[in-house]
Formats: sequence, C-alpha cells, structure tokens
Amino acid sequence: MNADFDYDLICIGSGPAGQRGAIQAAKLGKKVAVIEKRRCVGGVCLETGTIPSKTFREAINTFVSHQQQSKGLGFTPRTKVDITTLLSRVNRVIQEESEIQQDQLQRNDVNIILGTATFKNAHKIEVKTDEGVQTLSSKYFLIAVGTQPSVPKGIQLDNETIILSDGILDLNSLPRTMAVVGAGVVGMEYATMFAALGIQVTVIDKRDKPLGFLDHEIIDELMYQMRDKRGTFRLGEEVTHLGIIENGKKKQGLIQLESGKHIIADLILYSAGRVGAIEQLKLKQAGLKADSRGRLKVDNSYRTSVKHIYAAGDVIGFPSLAATSATQGRLAACHMFGVKSKPMGEYFPFGIYSIPEISMVGATEEELTRAKIPYETGIARYREIARGQIMGDNTGLLKIIVHRETEKLLGVHAIGTGVTELIHVGQAVMQLNGKLDYFMQTVFNYPTLAECYKVAALNVSNKLQYSSLAKAIAV
Amino acid sequence: MNADFDYDLICIGSGPAGQRGAIQAAKLGKKVAVIEKRRCVGGVCLETGTIPSKTFREAINTFVSHQQQSKGLGFTPRTKVDITTLLSRVNRVIQEESEIQQDQLQRNDVNIILGTATFKNAHKIEVKTDEGVQTLSSKYFLIAVGTQPSVPKGIQLDNETIILSDGILDLNSLPRTMAVVGAGVVGMEYATMFAALGIQVTVIDKRDKPLGFLDHEIIDELMYQMRDKRGTFRLGEEVTHLGIIENGKKKQGLIQLESGKHIIADLILYSAGRVGAIEQLKLKQAGLKADSRGRLKVDNSYRTSVKHIYAAGDVIGFPSLAATSATQGRLAACHMFGVKSKPMGEYFPFGIYSIPEISMVGATEEELTRAKIPYETGIARYREIARGQIMGDNTGLLKIIVHRETEKLLGVHAIGTGVTELIHVGQAVMQLNGKLDYFMQTVFNYPTLAECYKVAALNVSNKLQYSSLAKAIAV
Repeated sequence: MNADFDYDLICIGSGPAGQRGAIQAAKLGKKVAVIEKRRCVGGVCLETGTIPSKTFREAINTFVSHQQQSKGLGFTPRTKVDITTLLSRVNRVIQEESEIQQDQLQRNDVNIILGTATFKNAHKIEVKTDEGVQTLSSKYFLIAVGTQPSVPKGIQLDNETIILSDGILDLNSLPRTMAVVGAGVVGMEYATMFAALGIQVTVIDKRDKPLGFLDHEIIDELMYQMRDKRGTFRLGEEVTHLGIIENGKKKQGLIQLESGKHIIADLILYSAGRVGAIEQLKLKQAGLKADSRGRLKVDNSYRTSVKHIYAAGDVIGFPSLAATSATQGRLAACHMFGVKSKPMGEYFPFGIYSIPEISMVGATEEELTRAKIPYETGIARYREIARGQIMGDNTGLLKIIVHRETEKLLGVHAIGTGVTELIHVGQAVMQLNGKLDYFMQTVFNYPTLAECYKVAALNVSNKLQYSSLAKAIAV
Repeated sequence: MNADFDYDLICIGSGPAGQRGAIQAAKLGKKVAVIEKRRCVGGVCLETGTIPSKTFREAINTFVSHQQQSKGLGFTPRTKVDITTLLSRVNRVIQEESEIQQDQLQRNDVNIILGTATFKNAHKIEVKTDEGVQTLSSKYFLIAVGTQPSVPKGIQLDNETIILSDGILDLNSLPRTMAVVGAGVVGMEYATMFAALGIQVTVIDKRDKPLGFLDHEIIDELMYQMRDKRGTFRLGEEVTHLGIIENGKKKQGLIQLESGKHIIADLILYSAGRVGAIEQLKLKQAGLKADSRGRLKVDNSYRTSVKHIYAAGDVIGFPSLAATSATQGRLAACHMFGVKSKPMGEYFPFGIYSIPEISMVGATEEELTRAKIPYETGIARYREIARGQIMGDNTGLLKIIVHRETEKLLGVHAIGTGVTELIHVGQAVMQLNGKLDYFMQTVFNYPTLAECYKVAALNVSNKLQYSSLAKAIAV
C-alpha cells in the first residue's frame, strides 16, 4: 500500500473486466475499490447485458422444450406463457449471481462503492453516492465502464412500444409481432428468442447480413431457421422514421424505411450500435480522450495514454465479450503490479446466445479466401450423430476448416444445441497446434455431440483424398 | 476381391466394432458382409445395450426436467409418467438409429445377413437365416459379437419380477421399489435412472464400491446423490438367494444376503457380469479358444491367434466402450488390408450415462498415489459458475489433476449435466501435451460449463503457490 493514495487500484465499473481486475489486484495484496454506478439490492449490480439476456434465453428455451417434451411424453402442451413467469426466473438468477459476485469481491477484501465516478485529476476521482460525495485517490485506475446503447437524434423511445434491450426486462406483456432494428449480437439474440416463442419477428439492418463477422454458411443456416419460424429480414435497408401509431385501443410501433416500406409491430427493439459509457467520467480531467464512439485506446498491456490509467472490457472495443473482458481485466492488474503473465490465448471463441446458439473459433471461410490460404472443409450434421437423434435436434451442424496442405485446424463454426460448449474442443486443438489427425485418432464418448468433430474430420479427409487423386490424374 | 472366397471380410456382429470394421473395409474397395443374429424390422438391429439405455435415460431426464420446468414456469407438474410413454420414445429412436446405420452399411455396399453364424473351419462359416442355411467363405473375419449377461446357476429369472437389463424394454409398469444386483456400469446407469423417477432403489454388490475404476471422489459424489434420492447401498455383500414371493395379489422379488439381510422389491435387475456371446460361433472349429469369460485374446492389431481372424469390441474385454469398439473395428480392417493407420489416441474418455452423468479421462487420484506420482488437484463446482446458476444444476463438479512439478494435465474427472461432452476439452489438452497454463490463458465462452476448467485450474494454481511457499519456509 502506497501511503500517498487511498487505494492502490480503483476499478470503475463492476462488470467482468472491473471485477476480475479488482480480484487479481486484491490477490496480490493490494488495496482495491470497485465503483459501480448501478444500484441493486444485495450490492453489486449485474450488468444489464450478459446474464439477464442469457437467463431470459434459458427461460424461453425451457418453455419451448417444455412444450416439445409435453408432446413427447403424451401430455397436452400449454401454449401460453406469460412474461411475468419468464422474468421471475431471470430475476431470481440475477439475484443469486449478484450475491455470488459480491461475495467474491468481499472475500477478497475489495471495497464496493455504489456511486458515480468522475475524474478530478489523473489520480483522483469524486464519487457521488446516496450518502453524499467522497473524493478518493488511487495509484492506478482501471476504467471498465462498458457501453450503453446509442440512440440517434430524432428517435423517440417510449420504453413501452419502442425500447432498448435493457427494456426487455420491464416488459408487461409479450407482443404478437416485433421488429428489431439492428442485426448485431444483441439484436439477433433477442430476435431469435422471441421467434422461438412463436412471435412474428422482422429484423432490419442497413448491412446485407446479420452478424456479418460469422462464417457465412452459419449465417445462412441461422437465417433459414429464423424464416422457418415466420421471421422476416429487411437487410440493406435504412430506417428513416420510427414512430408510434394508435390502432384502436392498441399502441403499435411504425418503422418507415428509405425504400418506402412500412413495418408495423407491437414492439420495436432498437439495438443499432452501442457507445462507451464514459459520459460521467469526465475523462478530459484525467488527461484522456475517447474516440467518437466513446471508446478508449489501449496498448498491449491495456494501458491508456496516461500510464497509470488502464482500460478493459467493452469500452476498449473488439471483441467485447464477457470472457475476453474478464481476462483483459486480470492481465491489466497483473501488468500494473509487475506480475508477469502470459498473454491471452490467441484463439478465443465467440458465443452468440441466439436460439439456436452459435459459436466459432479461428478463421471463417471468407477470411481465408481473402487471404488466399488454401483450405478444405468438413461438415457434420446433428441428425447424422446418435446423440442428435436421441436429443431430437436435427438442425444443428458443426464445420471444421483445415489447411489443405499442412492439415492444421484453421477454424470451427457451429450452430445448434450446446455449441458454445462444444467449440472449446476445437479451440484446444487449434491452440495446441493439433491437426486433422487429432480428430481421426481420438475416441469420443458415444453418444455425444462431440462426435461431430470426428464425422467432420472424416468428411475433410475424404475430400482431401479425392483431391490428391485428382491431382495425381492431372499430373 | 479374391476369387477363392465369397468375401474379403465377414464381420460377425453389427455393433459398433462390426459396423465400423465393415465400412472401413468397404471404403477400401473390399467385398464385405455383416452377420447379425438379432432380427428387427428395418434390418440391422441395434445392440440392446448402448442406444436403448441412453435413450431410456434421455426420456427419463426429459420427464424429470419437465417436472422441474413446470414448477419453474409456474405450472402444476404432472407427477406420474407411465412406462409406455417412456418406452415409446425409446422405440422411435431405436427405429431411426437402426435405419441410419442400415443405410450407412448399404450405401457402402456391405451385405447385411440376418442370421446366426457358426464356424465350419477357419475360412468358412455357416449362417442360419429364416430362409435356411448358407455357407460362406471369407479371406478375413472380424469377430464382434459383443457380450451377454452371465447368470449363475441357481438364479431363476422370470423376466417380470427378476430381469436382466435387456428386459427393461419389456417392462409393463414401473415398480415402486427396485433392487439392482451388480454395481457395474449397466447396473448403476439403470439404478440412478429409476431413482431419478422417484423409485426407491437398493444397489447390491460384493465389491466395496460401485464403479470402482472411477476416481473415488466422483464415486462418493454419485453415492451421496443417489442416497439423497432415497437410494440404499448394500456393498461388500454376497447374494445367496434370489426368489419370488407372493405378497397378496402382488409378486415381489426377494434377495437374501450372506450377512442375513433380506431385501424385498417389486423389481430385481440382475446385472452382475457379462460374458462373450460366443456360444453359437463354435470357435474351436476355427482353431480358436476363448477364456473362461468368453473373451478372445488379440494382439496390438486386434488379431487373434489365427492370423486372418480378428476380434474387436466387448468380446476382447477392456475397455468395452461403444466408442473404443468402433475404433478397434476400423483399425482391425485397416490392418487386414495393409492400410497404415495411427493407433488409437492414448487418452480415451469413459462416459457413464447415469443420472447425473459421469465422465473421466486419464488417471485417477488412486492410480497416481499407487504409482507415487506427485500431483495437485483443483475442483470447480457448477454452483460457482454462472452457467450452473442459469441451469439450476448445483451438484455438478469437475476436478482436474495436474503433475506437481511438470504441471502436465494427468486426469479429468467430472459428474453432472453434460460432462460426457465437457470431458473432450481436457482430453484434447492431455493428448496434445497441454499443461495447467493452457486453462489459465484460455478464454472460454461465458457463460458455459467449460469455465469449470478455468476455475479448477486457478484452484490448482493457488495450491501450488501455497505449497511452493511452504517449501520455501521449510527450507
């Protein structure tokens, strides 16, 4: 502890980055505080993003599988579920998870302060709490404030008919029709969840594909399945007006597109873009400047341009995943206090908690084609695998991409039940330099979804053999 | 094709070993037949073991989770499920899976013959089918007949009150109480399934632990959970008598133990030991001899003492897993026809489809202690992980064992939802020589069960640090 400062480290924000950074520093014997601007009974509030949306998804999945299972068990399925039931489960999990996280911080002697932080200078912040204002100094800071939705001027939210994703948890009833503006991760997660409940969903985006960073075969599969549930995509379309119309007694949302189309829906979810939640920080007073989207630039050690102020998580931009943010927070704390630590694994997975869920690790076909890296692909569909049969999931699929010559694994792309778990097998093989033969030689538990790796590998191997045959003939 | 013989390869038995062997040989352009002694509409019959029991388990899991979900969704759960409902799902999956497997054989031009095979000499078999007897010759044979339950003399099965595991699929009603004799894989899988349905189950074994090859901490957890569902263990007990008593209008089973105890149950499942299903083969006429338990000895290439007769799968004993059997069949076929293939991966996983499921790869603590290999363990419990919270599984756990000095991963042991899938991450790390730091550096999707690996690794790492501290102090 440095006597010149109140703390060794103050983390601003208690999401995955702030939490992990704080705990790491505390484990090194440092005096640490976490400032959290949200309030919630039980202490630290969970971010409004990851856990609530994942729990909401689980509740919906539960209802949908409950319906399927009822049929399977010969019971008459209940066709209605109300939003209160779904949300009560969400709130229970948030409560529990919040308590666990608070416990963990307190067990490590991290001070939790509920309030809003503002920089006074590069070593001092002012925190507005319910009890008043306090000034705190610290040797190091970790800015982990995350992001917030950005709403263009002219778009009016009434938080009832036109809402942001945070507003999902305040819904009083389920809509019959819904429109989602913005086909990014948050937009697509909620769009597929509501579609799974039988709600007619229209997705609008100015880009020509939802989730464009994914392998296109997976995007196509997602779109196919979404359309199969009565979903509609309006892509390459610009929204010119969002408004509310009174339709008899009922309020509805109206979207006008530049192409002249009108979309009317009971609920409009606006999820086009997020910006760094830096407003109240007054970064300038610490000598910092964010970019036009509220993002901070950091070096390899997560240090901003002011050497003792670090930043981690969504506020530094890509990849903005809970898992990577937590790791960034930990690595930032290690760097501050001179602890050597290996950098983050090169291959981190993406998990999209849509219904069905999507996950990927490594390169997409599109990236490899652009880079002129020769590859071959192999696909396994759940319906070919005993486990898929047993589960009754016949839409899932897993694709592996292998270097045509070295046979090194270059990417894994999957959509279907459990793929956010399944992807970690491919990730380990990539990170540890495994090749195609790993999957050929390996015995997988039977029956499991992991067998998809073997089926996909056999598929690649067959293609490679045919192609070496073709080469032999060509010569 | 060798003109001297009807076939290049005849596989006797169409379980995982026979099927995979046949397909591999067919892919190499060989003429292949598969002989299957069981009959079932739709062609090749599935073995009575793996798929039916796994599907039965899935149906039970469905019912149990349906009950939990009903409560979660605020519906009144149905408390009764009848056996017909459960079994209809099983039969549907068997039918589908059977068709897929038959298709696969036929697509590869494998001849499927339903009948019983008997060796006439080392190159010739006689097959009794519904249409009569045919004699077939082959250059190579693959014996993949599997095993069958072994019932000691003096034990009378009536297939209603006292049954073998195959008889589960013929049950007319669910018992209120049940006794399982033999706490091996099959016995424990069914014991835990029936316990999950609320049936009071007693497990009897002469050994002092069920599934003794598992890591003991996992066994203890399984026993704890089984007892929590009103299960009873009678271990180190010898059965002296099995009989049926008439209790009013109701028949019940009676088990007498050498210790003097009596156990009365509506249903007795006898699952103590299996022997190779070699009776009808008349191995002697091919110049072969099985051991006292009907098992055949093979070399590293799965060749018996007669050089052109191979054996694979349960009939050659350990490890007797569907997945390893399939690989053995494939490797045997490769060896016959001179195709070089890498041997089976060193680390294959064990999957026990009990409720909850169990899986392991690598060494147990007991094995390492006996071998005097110094290790440290790390444990993650599902209730500490966000994904466990979301799923509501707070009993699952994953343990990793790491070499104390080299930090190499030596074993992974897990019990809980999805562990038969989860284990493959640890398996890849072990097989590809990963160490503790793999899990420390790796980013896992959030929220997933795979995060258990990271939590367990941090746990090991903390212990190793404390212990190097202890060493420093000791010096």
